[in-house]
Amino acid sequence: MKHFTSIADVQNVDQLVEQAILFKNNPFQSELGKGKKVGLVFLNPSLRTRLSTQVAAQNLGAEAIVLDIGKDGWALEFNDGVVMNGDKAEHIREAAAVMGRYFDILGVRTFPGLTDRSEDYAEILLQSFIKYAGIPVVSLESGTRHPLQSLADLMTIQEQWPHSHKPKVVLTWAPHVKALPQAVPNSFAEWMIQADVDFSIANPAGYDLAPEFSNGVSVFHDQAEALEGADFVYVKNWSSYEHYGQVLSQDEKWTFGQKQLSLTNNAKVMHCLPVRRGLVIKDEVLDSKNAIHLEQAENRVYAAQSILNELLK
Amino acid sequence: MKHFTSIADVQNVDQLVEQAILFKNNPFQSELGKGKKVGLVFLNPSLRTRLSTQVAAQNLGAEAIVLDIGKDGWALEFNDGVVMNGDKAEHIREAAAVMGRYFDILGVRTFPGLTDRSEDYAEILLQSFIKYAGIPVVSLESGTRHPLQSLADLMTIQEQWPHSHKPKVVLTWAPHVKALPQAVPNSFAEWMIQADVDFSIANPAGYDLAPEFSNGVSVFHDQAEALEGADFVYVKNWSSYEHYGQVLSQDEKWTFGQKQLSLTNNAKVMHCLPVRRGLVIKDEVLDSKNAIHLEQAENRVYAAQSILNELLK
Amino acid sequence: MKHFTSIADVQNVDQLVEQAILFKNNPFQSELGKGKKVGLVFLNPSLRTRLSTQVAAQNLGAEAIVLDIGKDGWALEFNDGVVMNGDKAEHIREAAAVMGRYFDILGVRTFPGLTDRSEDYAEILLQSFIKYAGIPVVSLESGTRHPLQSLADLMTIQEQWPHSHKPKVVLTWAPHVKALPQAVPNSFAEWMIQADVDFSIANPAGYDLAPEFSNGVSVFHDQAEALEGADFVYVKNWSSYEHYGQVLSQDEKWTFGQKQLSLTNNAKVMHCLPVRRGLVIKDEVLDSKNAIHLEQAENRVYAAQSILNELLK
Repeated sequence: MKHFTSIADVQNVDQLVEQAILFKNNPFQSELGKGKKVGLVFLNPSLRTRLSTQVAAQNLGAEAIVLDIGKDGWALEFNDGVVMNGDKAEHIREAAAVMGRYFDILGVRTFPGLTDRSEDYAEILLQSFIKYAGIPVVSLESGTRHPLQSLADLMTIQEQWPHSHKPKVVLTWAPHVKALPQAVPNSFAEWMIQADVDFSIANPAGYDLAPEFSNGVSVFHDQAEALEGADFVYVKNWSSYEHYGQVLSQDEKWTFGQKQLSLTNNAKVMHCLPVRRGLVIKDEVLDSKNAIHLEQAENRVYAAQSILNELLK
Repeated sequence: MKHFTSIADVQNVDQLVEQAILFKNNPFQSELGKGKKVGLVFLNPSLRTRLSTQVAAQNLGAEAIVLDIGKDGWALEFNDGVVMNGDKAEHIREAAAVMGRYFDILGVRTFPGLTDRSEDYAEILLQSFIKYAGIPVVSLESGTRHPLQSLADLMTIQEQWPHSHKPKVVLTWAPHVKALPQAVPNSFAEWMIQADVDFSIANPAGYDLAPEFSNGVSVFHDQAEALEGADFVYVKNWSSYEHYGQVLSQDEKWTFGQKQLSLTNNAKVMHCLPVRRGLVIKDEVLDSKNAIHLEQAENRVYAAQSILNELLK
Repeated sequence: MKHFTSIADVQNVDQLVEQAILFKNNPFQSELGKGKKVGLVFLNPSLRTRLSTQVAAQNLGAEAIVLDIGKDGWALEFNDGVVMNGDKAEHIREAAAVMGRYFDILGVRTFPGLTDRSEDYAEILLQSFIKYAGIPVVSLESGTRHPLQSLADLMTIQEQWPHSHKPKVVLTWAPHVKALPQAVPNSFAEWMIQADVDFSIANPAGYDLAPEFSNGVSVFHDQAEALEGADFVYVKNWSSYEHYGQVLSQDEKWTFGQKQLSLTNNAKVMHCLPVRRGLVIKDEVLDSKNAIHLEQAENRVYAAQSILNELLK
């Protein structure tokens, strides 16, 4: 593995999940991180990703150094050929290259602007870091994907599913007050398509994910129909891909509650967090035994550790 | 010890102080922190507490991970049963529970709002972290107490008092331009009441501490009367408990200077820092040999180390 | 070495550079930092200095603890004898002294105000930290100097110059949209004067450096004349010393491009970063083999490590 920005970077997904589970049982079994420095650059805020990746690095014996760009540093220029006489103090060509000289692995978080779809989906920021850093880069969530989350999600499903037959996994949209990225649902879809599960998506009209992420997946615009018999339900809001970055609906009928849960096969309910209670998922579900969002969050540590360990090999 | 939020959590105060002094002599005598992660969550700014607790954790071999909520993270919701469609991105139920999965010990700093007394004194924020984190929680100063400071204060008094008879310890109010919490004086009173000292308080009328903290303590509204023969004077501003959170007086007669010091038994003068020179304590005292505020600050490391070590057992 | 704030603190410059090069070959050869704490206090933002010094400390086995004053802490008072009833929460006398009790070495970054020349050049902030911390202090760039940068610069020149005769080194001013400190050029001049090089400076009229830093150096107001036959060119903007802190010129004829480079002896081109492309140095130079700005940045780690190691002896 050279970088980790999507499932396409993974040679053997099963092995990766297995390694993550081994780390959960014994976090200190690898010392590949000894003397190594992992830089974690955040262009956007983070709680779980930041903490879990720090813990993961430290479990491997590595030093994690966090940098909040814009707050600790300064605004970066990503366009080539410009005369930098505005508010951008440094070009990504230098910033990334310097970090590449200081660190052994570079983690980068960058959110999409949600205004220019082709720009966001070209992943210019993440790709620029990869191009100029010259060291392995790990996506800590980018414009279109959140692969560390998806790996933790897959690991959680595997832990929670003792049966030999395929589980039915449904990703359902839920309302939100803000326009959120498509990164988590995109990424989850991408991983589920490759996993040994029966996967489908439920969302209101206008909220279909980009074809490149939902290709071949059954998409339902009727939530009840999709949820029938589900073993796992991943609840998540996202803004429209078609009407890019827009909030087309805040329909509270899509808020996931006991009513929705009752349609499933006593499903385990998932969310990547942070979750807005009452709006995305109701308390009655989040506080029930069906909710496994905390297991997902915990598994973020071991997903990250598994990736860092792979890149340090 | 399950948590450390007040002196009530301590089984044996003498032993705790003794252990702190042992750590001061040899900071690296315990390796209980090896492989352990200590999360330090600040909902409010901090210099001494942050640095001293990081140093303490590292002395034990543990990793300290600092998170400035609101700056690094986002606004937290503490109320139950609400539909989170406002500016709060995450509920304490998830935030604390996730941190509980990442860390072995969680330190939390949270200041009181100083507007709703019953809310502040119910310690809703701190108690919520305890309720949902599921791991030992250390108060890094809460709405009503600052126990790590008080432990360091007691340790300092013990170091500075070679005699077998009880020292006379006076806590005196001093003026300030801002409305400050009662946490430090509350906590200091709570610890002094249990310590082997003769303790009293001086403050202007309207500034009496909450009965639960000053129960049985002689309170003087005449500073000179209180200071007579004092061996230790703890100078500190606080806002009114009675007229909750209000600044009732900025009377500079209460500023602690040479005049006040001359009334004492050549007392050692204490302050938890930060101290506003000239306003709370005059330069003539802070720059004299009577001032032991830097010893208190230094002892914060060993107080924290003693507590973390206890919780790691 | 007691402190490191300028070349005057260094007993043997050659030995220091040699040690830095040894660390570059083997970063983990010294364990002098084991159990030691290095505090890094930033009153101003930093990317390279912050990251490189953290890496340097960790390479030595020390713990680096970063504090962003003003953001993590609060505004500091530097004047004596004042009644602190304004917005300053703590006096440097206490803040520095407390850090001196927590750390083994204290790094401090503080920018000049660029309005009061005598105040900036008196280095009141840095000197106050030294006066009250009571431990070795390392400048992470101060009002008038950036010695860690200069040490890395000298190391880079030495690495890139295999010949036995002296290289010709030219420091040239370049335009910028903001008023920048004179710290980097001052410091570079100070180190070059002592180094075994032929050193001169090119800048527009009104931009001469302070006499104490450029004493005995040939200063050209004609860039082309200065660049002739140069082996190394250090490009950097600074604001006026004479008309203190002012931007007197934004003349793009001074922007360093292929035209300027062609006047030199195929010079290596240096910059301390961050560099504004197109404004200070053109892409055609920064993306050429002549540019060694990334080598300088990388060497910041080993310069810092060499200094920390010296101070830990």
